[in-house]
Amino acid sequence: MASPTYKSALIVGAGQGLSASLTRLLRKEGLAVSIVARDTAKLAPLCAETGGRAWSCDAQNETEVQRLFADIDREQGAPDVVIYNASARSRGPFIELVPAEVQRAMQVTAFGAFLVAQQAAARMLPKRHGAILFTGASASVKGYALSAPFAMGKFALRGLAQSLARELAPQGIHVAHFVIDGGIRGPGHNDDPAKPDTLLDPDAIALTYLNILRQPRSAWTWEIELRPWVERF
Amino acid sequence: MASPTYKSALIVGAGQGLSASLTRLLRKEGLAVSIVARDTAKLAPLCAETGGRAWSCDAQNETEVQRLFADIDREQGAPDVVIYNASARSRGPFIELVPAEVQRAMQVTAFGAFLVAQQAAARMLPKRHGAILFTGASASVKGYALSAPFAMGKFALRGLAQSLARELAPQGIHVAHFVIDGGIRGPGHNDDPAKPDTLLDPDAIALTYLNILRQPRSAWTWEIELRPWVERF
Amino acid sequence: MASPTYKSALIVGAGQGLSASLTRLLRKEGLAVSIVARDTAKLAPLCAETGGRAWSCDAQNETEVQRLFADIDREQGAPDVVIYNASARSRGPFIELVPAEVQRAMQVTAFGAFLVAQQAAARMLPKRHGAILFTGASASVKGYALSAPFAMGKFALRGLAQSLARELAPQGIHVAHFVIDGGIRGPGHNDDPAKPDTLLDPDAIALTYLNILRQPRSAWTWEIELRPWVERF
Amino acid sequence: MASPTYKSALIVGAGQGLSASLTRLLRKEGLAVSIVARDTAKLAPLCAETGGRAWSCDAQNETEVQRLFADIDREQGAPDVVIYNASARSRGPFIELVPAEVQRAMQVTAFGAFLVAQQAAARMLPKRHGAILFTGASASVKGYALSAPFAMGKFALRGLAQSLARELAPQGIHVAHFVIDGGIRGPGHNDDPAKPDTLLDPDAIALTYLNILRQPRSAWTWEIELRPWVERF
Repeated sequence: MASPTYKSALIVGAGQGLSASLTRLLRKEGLAVSIVARDTAKLAPLCAETGGRAWSCDAQNETEVQRLFADIDREQGAPDVVIYNASARSRGPFIELVPAEVQRAMQVTAFGAFLVAQQAAARMLPKRHGAILFTGASASVKGYALSAPFAMGKFALRGLAQSLARELAPQGIHVAHFVIDGGIRGPGHNDDPAKPDTLLDPDAIALTYLNILRQPRSAWTWEIELRPWVERF
Repeated sequence: MASPTYKSALIVGAGQGLSASLTRLLRKEGLAVSIVARDTAKLAPLCAETGGRAWSCDAQNETEVQRLFADIDREQGAPDVVIYNASARSRGPFIELVPAEVQRAMQVTAFGAFLVAQQAAARMLPKRHGAILFTGASASVKGYALSAPFAMGKFALRGLAQSLARELAPQGIHVAHFVIDGGIRGPGHNDDPAKPDTLLDPDAIALTYLNILRQPRSAWTWEIELRPWVERF
Repeated sequence: MASPTYKSALIVGAGQGLSASLTRLLRKEGLAVSIVARDTAKLAPLCAETGGRAWSCDAQNETEVQRLFADIDREQGAPDVVIYNASARSRGPFIELVPAEVQRAMQVTAFGAFLVAQQAAARMLPKRHGAILFTGASASVKGYALSAPFAMGKFALRGLAQSLARELAPQGIHVAHFVIDGGIRGPGHNDDPAKPDTLLDPDAIALTYLNILRQPRSAWTWEIELRPWVERF
Repeated sequence: MASPTYKSALIVGAGQGLSASLTRLLRKEGLAVSIVARDTAKLAPLCAETGGRAWSCDAQNETEVQRLFADIDREQGAPDVVIYNASARSRGPFIELVPAEVQRAMQVTAFGAFLVAQQAAARMLPKRHGAILFTGASASVKGYALSAPFAMGKFALRGLAQSLARELAPQGIHVAHFVIDGGIRGPGHNDDPAKPDTLLDPDAIALTYLNILRQPRSAWTWEIELRPWVERF
């Protein structure tokens, strides 16, 4: 029983708590880590702390995504782990939603994931080696009232992930979709001390991402749910 | 037990067999029917046959959708039934997919549905009366290999429909999503005479749409599956 | 496009509002209707009203179910529509549940459905004609806290229905599963007059059962959800 | 971020490859392990190898299950990890299935799980500590033709697991359901050497069970899928 060995990771949608936790954990495991955001200034502390490398890219933009991968190819070689965390949403009564924001929610949450996954897969398939992980939400499987744009983006992301798993897994690429059900702890978003662990600890989420990456290929996970012990579902 | 009474329907994505069957059946039931396509020339025979009225509109375009509804408001009053059938897809090995076509698949299949549903809902909510129906596919619930763009669009459409059902049903608007699993019979796409009824008859689909429209509000359907008797699932 | 023509129905688990509504509606459509309960005394008024015929049978008991079908064969011929409505449940904190009641919930809700469906299918398959309908609940697709036994029974029923649909539909038998999500109006269980139609009207449910029975085989439904317009889901 | 610490495990349905792999792995992690089967003779080699302790019990039998837990209480204290692997199935054309075997499939697969989980929960709840894991299958979420009894049992098991997760997780008990999709490698059931890793390696499955047990409570999994990289789904 052999676990796959990965060397370098690319995390898109950095800046959130989860991306930072993933960066720290994967660095600790010895992987090179590239962190991608539109605005890289905010990534400087994390890079300084972990030795990760920051890249600027708008994941909705085909040309920018192609250039990102080409740059990484040249400077440190193609990543064999790619994690897509970026998302955008827009909430409110349905008839008050702004169409441009709905479009943007789908673009950032799902179309950017497509662009990134396509560049990743093109590099992984010749080696029949690699992993592509997608961060979903409860909105990936349940369309809530007042939140159609997020459901549209996250449902689409799940459709992409499932289609990819069916197509790429038999070619040696591990594709997984994480249904994160609950709020993630972060700056300005902390547990009520009287009710510990009611928000997802991003370090705990990252641990499960790592364990999924380590799965031997005879027993791969396509989908897994994660929620705080007290979360209603 | 009272069934809702509807007066006029708007069908977007006409030209397909299903839209023609819906037009014929709803006309027969006494509803005024507006049929929408980008190219209305092809709709002339159906309009001549049924008395339906054709409108030209690109459903991906916010301004065109607004104008469509404004025009219909003026000429025949807002529809109380709106059916969204339009979709686009792109097939092939994942790494060969053309990003612009992926984007278009999401735009036509899901974003257009959002634009149309938003205009429809704005007119239905003040009256607390109306129905919005979405035509899904097996790709709405299953992401197939070599077909990520269609899964992305149809999953997103389903997320939209579910979110809308949760938000609008308690305000008196019936929202339903149809999972059409199988090929639809049509010009150039006929049953093998040795295996009758292996393709969905669009008249049979339309019959179920009508029956869903007639449901009293104490027992509304949000989702229903339709497939030929011999279809593997 | 031809709808199937059915001649006689067997409804198991009568006494509820839904069974009575189905009896009335199917009788009105011209079908002979047999109504089955363990205690037939309570069925007398419904039989008198509709001309339905009552039969006594414990659906959990293999011998009784065999005899029921044999008796019906002799007296009025095998039914070509069979509807299974019976269920049992047991609620409470998990560790206080009584094992015998848990077993009974599974027996009545799912094993009885198996016994009845098997006798029905044996008679339908040679003619490649018939329909078997199963009444599910929100508990068929969601396991609620404090209600494990009902989830066990209704999940099992859904597994049976799905397996049967895959096996029997290509042999001409229509199998359908109804997810009834909400309370059903009935004696002692009425709508709050200030909030009309917040409970499912059994006549409205029955109407959808009838429309599913009428579906042409090119567009059959395996699963459909029904809930009041105001029901949270 | 703290992972839970468990001391002793009870594995029901031993003898399969998965139970043996779980025994070895949990022993290696320092847990005491009790292995339960109806026939303990076959467990002797595994016990000799690992230091696990074998117990005889028919999990369908309420009295035997109560006695099992009482005996373990006395001899080594209540387990804080309980894993239910037992199942029974019966395959064939629906109308040829033997009712007693259908009943047995539900009893072993689901009712036994209820009995075991109830005893386990009664011991875990006062300490607000423990984990109950259920081994599902693709038949837990999909009812295949010719296999209704297995679907009935595994769907019921999933309903139980989901209901328990909703009820017990907020009381500190981790409940998880594993959807094992594919054949498990074992004696007489080996990979084709030309197609490595096409059967699930039970050691690989066990590794994921262990990782789920180690999850901090802020990010618990209720459901996870596992399948070989080449498995069609």
